[in-house]
Amino acid sequence: MSKKLRIVPLGGLGEIGKNMMAYEYGNNILIVDTGIMFPENDMWGIDYIIPDYQYLLDKRDQVRGIVITHGHEDHTGAIAHVFEEMQAPIYATPLTLGLLEVKLARRGLRDKAQLNTVQAGEKVEIGPFTVEFAHVCHSIPDGVALGITTPVGLVVHTGDYKFDHTPVDNWPTDYAKLSEWAGRDVLALLADSTNADKPGWTPSERVIDAAFDKVFSQAPGRILVATFASLISRMQQVGEAALKHKRKLAFVGRSMQENAKMARQLGYLDLPDDLIVPIDQALDMKPKKVVLMCTGSQGEPSSIMGRLATGRNRQFDIQKDDTVVLSSHPIPGNEEIVYRTINRLFQRGANVIYEPIEMVHVSGHASQEEMKLMLHLIKPQYLIPVHGELRHLRQHAALAEEIGIPQENVAVVENGTVIEFEDGKMTVGERVPGGYVFVDGAGVGDIGPSVVRERESLARDGFVVVNLLVNRQTGDLEAEPEIVTRGFVFARESEDLLEATRQEINKTLQGADGNIQKQLEKKLKSLFYDETKRRPLVFVVVNEV
Amino acid sequence: MSKKLRIVPLGGLGEIGKNMMAYEYGNNILIVDTGIMFPENDMWGIDYIIPDYQYLLDKRDQVRGIVITHGHEDHTGAIAHVFEEMQAPIYATPLTLGLLEVKLARRGLRDKAQLNTVQAGEKVEIGPFTVEFAHVCHSIPDGVALGITTPVGLVVHTGDYKFDHTPVDNWPTDYAKLSEWAGRDVLALLADSTNADKPGWTPSERVIDAAFDKVFSQAPGRILVATFASLISRMQQVGEAALKHKRKLAFVGRSMQENAKMARQLGYLDLPDDLIVPIDQALDMKPKKVVLMCTGSQGEPSSIMGRLATGRNRQFDIQKDDTVVLSSHPIPGNEEIVYRTINRLFQRGANVIYEPIEMVHVSGHASQEEMKLMLHLIKPQYLIPVHGELRHLRQHAALAEEIGIPQENVAVVENGTVIEFEDGKMTVGERVPGGYVFVDGAGVGDIGPSVVRERESLARDGFVVVNLLVNRQTGDLEAEPEIVTRGFVFARESEDLLEATRQEINKTLQGADGNIQKQLEKKLKSLFYDETKRRPLVFVVVNEV
Repeated sequence: MSKKLRIVPLGGLGEIGKNMMAYEYGNNILIVDTGIMFPENDMWGIDYIIPDYQYLLDKRDQVRGIVITHGHEDHTGAIAHVFEEMQAPIYATPLTLGLLEVKLARRGLRDKAQLNTVQAGEKVEIGPFTVEFAHVCHSIPDGVALGITTPVGLVVHTGDYKFDHTPVDNWPTDYAKLSEWAGRDVLALLADSTNADKPGWTPSERVIDAAFDKVFSQAPGRILVATFASLISRMQQVGEAALKHKRKLAFVGRSMQENAKMARQLGYLDLPDDLIVPIDQALDMKPKKVVLMCTGSQGEPSSIMGRLATGRNRQFDIQKDDTVVLSSHPIPGNEEIVYRTINRLFQRGANVIYEPIEMVHVSGHASQEEMKLMLHLIKPQYLIPVHGELRHLRQHAALAEEIGIPQENVAVVENGTVIEFEDGKMTVGERVPGGYVFVDGAGVGDIGPSVVRERESLARDGFVVVNLLVNRQTGDLEAEPEIVTRGFVFARESEDLLEATRQEINKTLQGADGNIQKQLEKKLKSLFYDETKRRPLVFVVVNEV
Repeated sequence: MSKKLRIVPLGGLGEIGKNMMAYEYGNNILIVDTGIMFPENDMWGIDYIIPDYQYLLDKRDQVRGIVITHGHEDHTGAIAHVFEEMQAPIYATPLTLGLLEVKLARRGLRDKAQLNTVQAGEKVEIGPFTVEFAHVCHSIPDGVALGITTPVGLVVHTGDYKFDHTPVDNWPTDYAKLSEWAGRDVLALLADSTNADKPGWTPSERVIDAAFDKVFSQAPGRILVATFASLISRMQQVGEAALKHKRKLAFVGRSMQENAKMARQLGYLDLPDDLIVPIDQALDMKPKKVVLMCTGSQGEPSSIMGRLATGRNRQFDIQKDDTVVLSSHPIPGNEEIVYRTINRLFQRGANVIYEPIEMVHVSGHASQEEMKLMLHLIKPQYLIPVHGELRHLRQHAALAEEIGIPQENVAVVENGTVIEFEDGKMTVGERVPGGYVFVDGAGVGDIGPSVVRERESLARDGFVVVNLLVNRQTGDLEAEPEIVTRGFVFARESEDLLEATRQEINKTLQGADGNIQKQLEKKLKSLFYDETKRRPLVFVVVNEV
């Protein structure tokens, strides 16, 4: 058996090792995280993206366990896809496991899965790996960093973290455990690089309280707070502000309600029973007495806030004197739709509070000084920056250099690049498939780049289909050509172009020999480009009779 | 003749009164600015957007003049479109007029246009309007605010501005003129709202010098600076840094070269002749001795930097030890493509410097404290916030309230809403067309929302065309159905679905009476949805023979 530890960052869209990582020793594989990513604006029609775990499919029997570091979608969202392929035991802290259970249950997999609750501070044996869980702060409670003792040494995997000294759940990072790991000589650190280009420290989640307090003091009517359904600590903060300002709190929408219920049952959301009212009751109360919490902080058209912005919400509408708080940052690429949502809410009479108007959101990820602190706490021999785009990993490497880690001990790699450790030495190994897989409707992976390119072309200039009925003997048209266009020109105003198309067809048919279809497609493409400077897809169908 | 002044904000995509404004008194119209906007991500295939100036077309003989406040695209880019419809004299400061001339010349309109140079500090009579030009700082030299004396009072139009105390051209804002206008009782102020949600002061353009100095000191090889072709002051700063660090400067790309040449001729770019070398010569020099300046700071795929990032630039490639500086902010909506470009440049071996890594760009627009200063300098009776999305205008109104302007004296309106002044009173009047017009290829305005919706649908799920040859008598198929799909499924892996489609066609034809085409389209749509959860456009063409 090989004495090598192989670390394989899998999946992630631009971001490296964020959604899924594999640790491999001999015939034993440990998976860390199973997340999804949202498509970029030019990934036309794609619903979401899962890691490309092709590399593991031949070795599925070697997977000894799946450990999830915290409950956010980009670390949990693909659990059902992964579990359908690899039925390994799943390990997580209670809140994370609660969120995973909801996902597995929706796909009918709850009973098949072996779910293991691990408390922060505990450790589990998974094949040849001993995995210790250390509590870290993030924007969801119960996140952990992992200390993975492997036959070649101790590897620390931070997961998403920031060093919040006043976290909402009053549970600071387990510095003692991190330092204790350092005392055992850490071979390698895999650390979150998300904010590697942000100087200084990320503010504590607590700074949001002051902003909420101001907003709650001034709001003349209802308050609607939009955020992510998994941002449990934000629910706690909104609940505390509601208590202080004598408002009742209603959760709107299924995912908010389910997550709030589960978090309260597990004790991660500590709010009195009589604070929380059903939405029906909230809508009957005086506006100044209620707070509604819902999804849609990214302007998603199908979310509650997205529907409120366009007047398509069934149960209630935005009304004058509503104060809407968007308690999140736009995810890069979502800026346009978020700002459009804000403008529409203003149009409907709401006052909208968002960053930078008030500090109603802070990042959940460490900034540069925290990343340096992590390096000093863990004192690793090698650093593998993960969780970030290439630009962030490079910046993380530069920070490590600043504090004295030699650059040859830092591996900046892309997804699918195997990093190997043997005899205390790190080498960058082979490339394996490690990209991402598109999920579109019911299809997983059936849409590849070629279909996306077709969609891109259709989105840019549309298409034209010309249907011809041609006499086999004479070569003459038996009927007027039928021309269908979509996304190319506005047909009612393009009679001249259609007439020119018909003339071109007749002319080409008269002079044609050989493949009429190809000749005509070529002629029409250049006609359309000359007339419109657009390049629609052109299909000619020739029916010979 | 009416004694009313009518102010009409026209065009602008989300942003109000930014790209074009009309001032109307009786039968006299003054146009201020003629800009373009770039399409949002879901405006599929649209090249750019021009203001909807339909309202002016019936009154084109009443247009007495077109005044342009500064030379950026979003204030000048539609000049040829507007001038083709309305041949009024054009007024601008020398640099702005130089940039307008280039645009008009490209469309063969240079000789038809009456171009009037107005120096900052001068005034011109345009119909019943006396227009005074006051120098303001922005990220391009020679910008002006306008003091428009109308028969009903003095209206001040700021244009884009910031209060830069150490501007690159050493020409500060003309505070004396602004104050002098205040002394004449300003009826209304129309002021830039772009950064209304940014607290404090916008830093001076000069702060960039320090960042450039650091980057130039450390760069081991070539330096490539990407920015907008119209950012003349950035050219000056890069040139000064090159001088100091003993590098030669080459401008790459037509628009950079043309603008640099024109700005040097007019004296707005003050750099010694021997600093500037042609690109061919620069490429032959030692890497440490050159700086290249090019476009593509927004990651545009067809720009120099966009091509360098993907290895498609003809003349030269990115090489190891190149330092690339992106001297701009991503325009909202462009974040994804900008970050992707940065990652690709890193992949190709460059080191990439961008904000927030170093302060290599600052905004050209006033922040909140500057906006308050403008209000105090001008002391207007009424405020009309312009240049910004609705959210910015509301925030501008809130700032005005903070410093004591009553809210009833502030008009927050959308494009196409006429604001009227009569007897010293402001009223919000009728709505006129004031949206925007899509330009796509050679077509201006022929693509409307319905075509864009078709493109959206095509982009999401593609289309399927089914071509049938049916015997008129028997209703039987005379040939196998021909099925063409694009952007829907990957055809080679979808044999089962195509087979199911053929079966559905046969089944439907057998049971069909009436309109076969419609029945089949309906059946196939539901087949496709059931099998794939996607909704492609479906077209059935029935050829009866």
